[in-house]
Amino acid sequence: MKLLQCYVDDIIKTALLEDINYIDVSADNLIPEELKSSAYYVAKDSGIVCGIEIAKRVFELVGGGVDFRILKKDGCEVQNGDIIAEMEGSTLTLLKGERTALNILQHMSGIATATNKCVKLVKGTNASVTDTRKTLPGLRALQKYAVTVGGGKNHRFNLSDAAMLKDNHIDAFGGITPAVRALREKIGHTVKIEVEVRTLDELREALENHVEIIMLDNMSCDTMREAVEITAKKALLEASGNVTEKNIREVAETGVDIISLGALTHSVKCFDISMKIKK
Amino acid sequence: MKLLQCYVDDIIKTALLEDINYIDVSADNLIPEELKSSAYYVAKDSGIVCGIEIAKRVFELVGGGVDFRILKKDGCEVQNGDIIAEMEGSTLTLLKGERTALNILQHMSGIATATNKCVKLVKGTNASVTDTRKTLPGLRALQKYAVTVGGGKNHRFNLSDAAMLKDNHIDAFGGITPAVRALREKIGHTVKIEVEVRTLDELREALENHVEIIMLDNMSCDTMREAVEITAKKALLEASGNVTEKNIREVAETGVDIISLGALTHSVKCFDISMKIKK
Amino acid sequence: MKLLQCYVDDIIKTALLEDINYIDVSADNLIPEELKSSAYYVAKDSGIVCGIEIAKRVFELVGGGVDFRILKKDGCEVQNGDIIAEMEGSTLTLLKGERTALNILQHMSGIATATNKCVKLVKGTNASVTDTRKTLPGLRALQKYAVTVGGGKNHRFNLSDAAMLKDNHIDAFGGITPAVRALREKIGHTVKIEVEVRTLDELREALENHVEIIMLDNMSCDTMREAVEITAKKALLEASGNVTEKNIREVAETGVDIISLGALTHSVKCFDISMKIKK
Amino acid sequence: MKLLQCYVDDIIKTALLEDINYIDVSADNLIPEELKSSAYYVAKDSGIVCGIEIAKRVFELVGGGVDFRILKKDGCEVQNGDIIAEMEGSTLTLLKGERTALNILQHMSGIATATNKCVKLVKGTNASVTDTRKTLPGLRALQKYAVTVGGGKNHRFNLSDAAMLKDNHIDAFGGITPAVRALREKIGHTVKIEVEVRTLDELREALENHVEIIMLDNMSCDTMREAVEITAKKALLEASGNVTEKNIREVAETGVDIISLGALTHSVKCFDISMKIKK
Amino acid sequence: MKLLQCYVDDIIKTALLEDINYIDVSADNLIPEELKSSAYYVAKDSGIVCGIEIAKRVFELVGGGVDFRILKKDGCEVQNGDIIAEMEGSTLTLLKGERTALNILQHMSGIATATNKCVKLVKGTNASVTDTRKTLPGLRALQKYAVTVGGGKNHRFNLSDAAMLKDNHIDAFGGITPAVRALREKIGHTVKIEVEVRTLDELREALENHVEIIMLDNMSCDTMREAVEITAKKALLEASGNVTEKNIREVAETGVDIISLGALTHSVKCFDISMKIKK
Amino acid sequence: MKLLQCYVDDIIKTALLEDINYIDVSADNLIPEELKSSAYYVAKDSGIVCGIEIAKRVFELVGGGVDFRILKKDGCEVQNGDIIAEMEGSTLTLLKGERTALNILQHMSGIATATNKCVKLVKGTNASVTDTRKTLPGLRALQKYAVTVGGGKNHRFNLSDAAMLKDNHIDAFGGITPAVRALREKIGHTVKIEVEVRTLDELREALENHVEIIMLDNMSCDTMREAVEITAKKALLEASGNVTEKNIREVAETGVDIISLGALTHSVKCFDISMKIKK
Repeated sequence: MKLLQCYVDDIIKTALLEDINYIDVSADNLIPEELKSSAYYVAKDSGIVCGIEIAKRVFELVGGGVDFRILKKDGCEVQNGDIIAEMEGSTLTLLKGERTALNILQHMSGIATATNKCVKLVKGTNASVTDTRKTLPGLRALQKYAVTVGGGKNHRFNLSDAAMLKDNHIDAFGGITPAVRALREKIGHTVKIEVEVRTLDELREALENHVEIIMLDNMSCDTMREAVEITAKKALLEASGNVTEKNIREVAETGVDIISLGALTHSVKCFDISMKIKK
Repeated sequence: MKLLQCYVDDIIKTALLEDINYIDVSADNLIPEELKSSAYYVAKDSGIVCGIEIAKRVFELVGGGVDFRILKKDGCEVQNGDIIAEMEGSTLTLLKGERTALNILQHMSGIATATNKCVKLVKGTNASVTDTRKTLPGLRALQKYAVTVGGGKNHRFNLSDAAMLKDNHIDAFGGITPAVRALREKIGHTVKIEVEVRTLDELREALENHVEIIMLDNMSCDTMREAVEITAKKALLEASGNVTEKNIREVAETGVDIISLGALTHSVKCFDISMKIKK
Repeated sequence: MKLLQCYVDDIIKTALLEDINYIDVSADNLIPEELKSSAYYVAKDSGIVCGIEIAKRVFELVGGGVDFRILKKDGCEVQNGDIIAEMEGSTLTLLKGERTALNILQHMSGIATATNKCVKLVKGTNASVTDTRKTLPGLRALQKYAVTVGGGKNHRFNLSDAAMLKDNHIDAFGGITPAVRALREKIGHTVKIEVEVRTLDELREALENHVEIIMLDNMSCDTMREAVEITAKKALLEASGNVTEKNIREVAETGVDIISLGALTHSVKCFDISMKIKK
Repeated sequence: MKLLQCYVDDIIKTALLEDINYIDVSADNLIPEELKSSAYYVAKDSGIVCGIEIAKRVFELVGGGVDFRILKKDGCEVQNGDIIAEMEGSTLTLLKGERTALNILQHMSGIATATNKCVKLVKGTNASVTDTRKTLPGLRALQKYAVTVGGGKNHRFNLSDAAMLKDNHIDAFGGITPAVRALREKIGHTVKIEVEVRTLDELREALENHVEIIMLDNMSCDTMREAVEITAKKALLEASGNVTEKNIREVAETGVDIISLGALTHSVKCFDISMKIKK
Repeated sequence: MKLLQCYVDDIIKTALLEDINYIDVSADNLIPEELKSSAYYVAKDSGIVCGIEIAKRVFELVGGGVDFRILKKDGCEVQNGDIIAEMEGSTLTLLKGERTALNILQHMSGIATATNKCVKLVKGTNASVTDTRKTLPGLRALQKYAVTVGGGKNHRFNLSDAAMLKDNHIDAFGGITPAVRALREKIGHTVKIEVEVRTLDELREALENHVEIIMLDNMSCDTMREAVEITAKKALLEASGNVTEKNIREVAETGVDIISLGALTHSVKCFDISMKIKK
Repeated sequence: MKLLQCYVDDIIKTALLEDINYIDVSADNLIPEELKSSAYYVAKDSGIVCGIEIAKRVFELVGGGVDFRILKKDGCEVQNGDIIAEMEGSTLTLLKGERTALNILQHMSGIATATNKCVKLVKGTNASVTDTRKTLPGLRALQKYAVTVGGGKNHRFNLSDAAMLKDNHIDAFGGITPAVRALREKIGHTVKIEVEVRTLDELREALENHVEIIMLDNMSCDTMREAVEITAKKALLEASGNVTEKNIREVAETGVDIISLGALTHSVKCFDISMKIKK
């Protein structure tokens, strides 16, 4: 799986323009163009590498002349001290691209790592871990890709590719049943309908309308267990709200199909990777 | 202080295109254009509001027809339960802009809140709290603005507006002294030079070269105290590396002038704000 | 349902730059800025209006000063001679925006009109009419929106929002069953799987794998009737290939659920609308 | 003749982002990166190939790793069954670029083919076939290029590179004579003036003003014959309005110099080309 | 005559992002949002105003809240000390937009002023003054518009709207005659052909081919006088090369139709205008 | 020192689209793709080459197939007649890129040359020559880079990287002292403060506030000499206003540290370079 190159390149160019503006007043003034160095990325923690191809691309776009050897591809598990990639070539390129490349690599690896922790925590249960639309502006594809690299799955990408009925939509139509019926008249055949419910009665009404997915909004684990029983596999159940690494196993064990976590993308702890430049 | 509108609008448009693509298959199909609702933002935690003007702008760009009253401007401290803004108008606009506006508002408020905690922790000392270049691609200005809203100060914006000499630059010139001299020949008169030092000997050499700022890289508090004494106000001292909320007070009390924290922008915990739509 | 304004504005601006470059050498040199005219759009054929809000927006972006009253909204059926909109104001704006507005309006109305003909032809059957990904570069959202205005439905918007397994995907995995299983491990819960089949045996294999949608590729109506029977509502059936206005009723009567037509967007006959400027 | 690469690349990137968004959920999840296939383009009808270099470029931009051999260059006449190009390489690239490449290639070949039919129909007469400004937003250069590949000629590209006086411009100045005089005072020496006339009297007035081109607006063939006689080669005559493949020969035989057809670009029937991927 | 607003806005936004980046560290930190000032533009030299509407637009895009009254429209002649416009409103907007607005206004007024000098110098002769394609990247439309404001005329806008045969084109075809014939087969009917000649023999060959325009490349005034006689109004003659304010009258008096000056746009002396902000 | 490639490429693409639109109607129609030529750049004056790498890049982006050998790198001093670069390859590429490449190269070399004259004039004094923010829209980085190539230094790049207090800022705070104090509370530690003064009393007040840079606004040389004495190296002094090649030496000899000249970038005389294409 590879992100579309022209999308990635646009993000890198934006980041380079932000970071360099027009010249690197330190390196461009001090480092001779022909100077060469070796460098490497080293993990400072345990986690999942993500974005290494993009980091490599940063050095191509910032000036080139660097041989970049990837030792740990996206999805690899690394430990503190593991070498992730080795670079050799233009010192100027290495210095000018260093921060931009790390900013992206650390953010994406942070997402993959956090996702992977959750995925491991629910191992053996029926539940898969997904992201949400709680992403940062301009970075949704990078972030959603990182979730899959961490072993998670993607929830809908945007408001046009799957339907989600929340209370406001439902109220405008006087109930789940009329709202779902009205929507079905309009949407294309590839679009699934998900309904957000807050009570088991709402769940039953959603099931009667044969919606494909039902979101259990902030329910207790007990209620979710009941929901699983009532649903009896007739729809996919998504647990949402206040799930953390602490309670995710318990939530998964209720039997729900999907656990979605906004924090995977809205509260990312960057994964610590250092770039060491050898003299 | 206000971000440049055309920069902000570009970020919002990118985010809207990501989130809506071409239509909101749920709201556009179900909500009549003339339907109106009231809504409000409520804080779910204690912290600093940031980005509220941008959230307001999202609703203008996604469809308009919403009267948006800001109750808590950027920089206001709020408690769990405080109303931050009230909206009234097109339900369709409110639903289509909800996620994009919150994603930005929560991210920026998260940065302002984290910054503000650090600023309070160092209160009474000589130290100011600053960001770094460890920002997310395309979002640097949003993030640096949020740091100032939280009471922090901005480090250099990019590689062209201040010079920073690290070991790689210095090694290429055979030492701090020749490197600083070479650089001074080239840079403009508005550009300050900062030198990164790892020992007190390097500090002394930097001081002899009259550099404006010296970064103390990962030094112990004891060494930093010595550095402060040696420096005797002849340069600004910046503490950098492994500073957290836990040790920032101790670092500040060494007498350094600046404490820079990458985590303010590279590991943002979003500040929890809910948008409630009244029926 | 309304297209995202910033998407629409970008298309209009691109079109204006193409058509005007920097000035309209005729109108800008001859028409005084204060001159005013009345004008109107008149249908020269029977069909469905689509894109009228976008046409209105063209005049705002090209210079403004025009009062544009829409008489026939998107989706209205018009006859030859019907007035679609009336404009009053700056002659210069009217002349400079005329071609750009008509180019968009006529293209979208052409799509809506052709779609509507098909929709009427299948009336009373089970089948809905959908578009495909056979769209023109940069215009997919405009075109898909026009299909819905004509009463059709949208197939998937892009390659990321629904999965479609064709023979090449299937061959790479040695059959429908392993391919579907492999895919299901990876895709998110909102993504439906559609499998393209060319024989009834492939159909049966797809059904055993509980895929949501099955595309019957270029099958005869007899075979499709059999497919409908075999499927027994356990999946949605999409007829695809060589469907025209001539045979669409016959195809629909086989009992398939969806009929997709590339021609709706790849071979658009523009709907004839004239702009008359009164002296 | 070759379109400007950066213009073409921007159109391709826009189309790829529309079609792939961030990943191809089918191919990216199922096709191993190292898998290779052979493929080819085969014509399904008789016509003129156009856009084959752009199709080739799509595969470079969507992922590369494909050897693309062009057998029929732009302008070649092909018959049903002719192989247009052969590709060999990354299956993933072939699948991800397939639709985007075909959408462009089929559209451009459709224009070239329709143009070529008209060009052949007027063969032996004085008339050349041209396009108009009735093009699709963002695609004017692609479309105008395709017209030339089909053997047609381009009318003005935009409102700034040639002047066209229609009744509204003329009325604002009280007649053809004062309008042409006023315009001549202002325009540059490389800009030709074309005047649209609806009667032979208007034609005579235009001729007295020595305009370079006169458009005969929706005139009967008899009137056009008279116009040709009156004009006596003192200006170029352009027939415009209601010209189709059925009557174009008759129009050409009136002796007019140019026949312009909006349908060449506003009502394009795509030329059917299939991409076959060998196992 | 008005430049296309979306083109102008893009230039202004680019300039604002260059000049402000994200905040004006001086004004944004010191000037209260509610502070108001009066200001005005005063000419510091004699010349022609150009770009005043664009200057006005800068203040709208940088923050708004300023009432901008234009006293001297584009094309007005001003003397040292004349007030060109008065502004009243937000001090912050005035300070942040000041430089960007002046940079554009002074550049455009500089072009209009220099053009106007040349236009006055050739008054009473047959010659008109035109620009060339020697413009600055991204600014061609601004610059060509300024030439017309100064009373000059525009040469071709780009390589696609008029043909110019230079020696390299001609050599590739073995002479003027075959090159013109080959070109005429291909170009559209709105495109004029200009041929560059260096001798009177070449001039005669160009005339025999009925080209519309002939450029006399770096000829002496005597030779140009002969050229005018030989040509006898059968083509437009353009004098090009080494024309300055000093010799332009002499060149014009040879009887040529057009004098093109690269310096109008490639060597612009900005016209001095000051913005005074009253306390 | 090298400008960021993606910034340069965007400027080149914009310029190519301006100059070629979609085809070069002369070269694309006449020059066979396989034709090859030799060409070279020759200086027509004495000065400093700047932008030669960008000129080279133009030919790559406009079509490629040209071997471009740089004989005089950026910063080289050339005399009338010196060969700057030699090209060999596709005639079509050479003709299509010629104007765009020269427009950039001549503008940048013009800036470098003018700067270099000033630098030489102040040689042996304490003063360095700098640019200002008086640049052309979209070209600031190109222009500032050219100043450094000419031996000058860059003043601040934009309003966010250094603070400058002018009378309007100062008046809003009731004096230099409160304004500087207020600003110091807010700005980051890498931002220098420059204060513009018009009297020696203001100079003394600025010095008391320990500002880093003081701009002497339009002072006489006598006053500047006094200012230098009073300042006694406690701040950098910048002379600004009405400095020309004629008086720059006298200004420099007052002892000021910096002389800034708007004319370096706002009134550029292009440096004459010819491209000769050999048959």
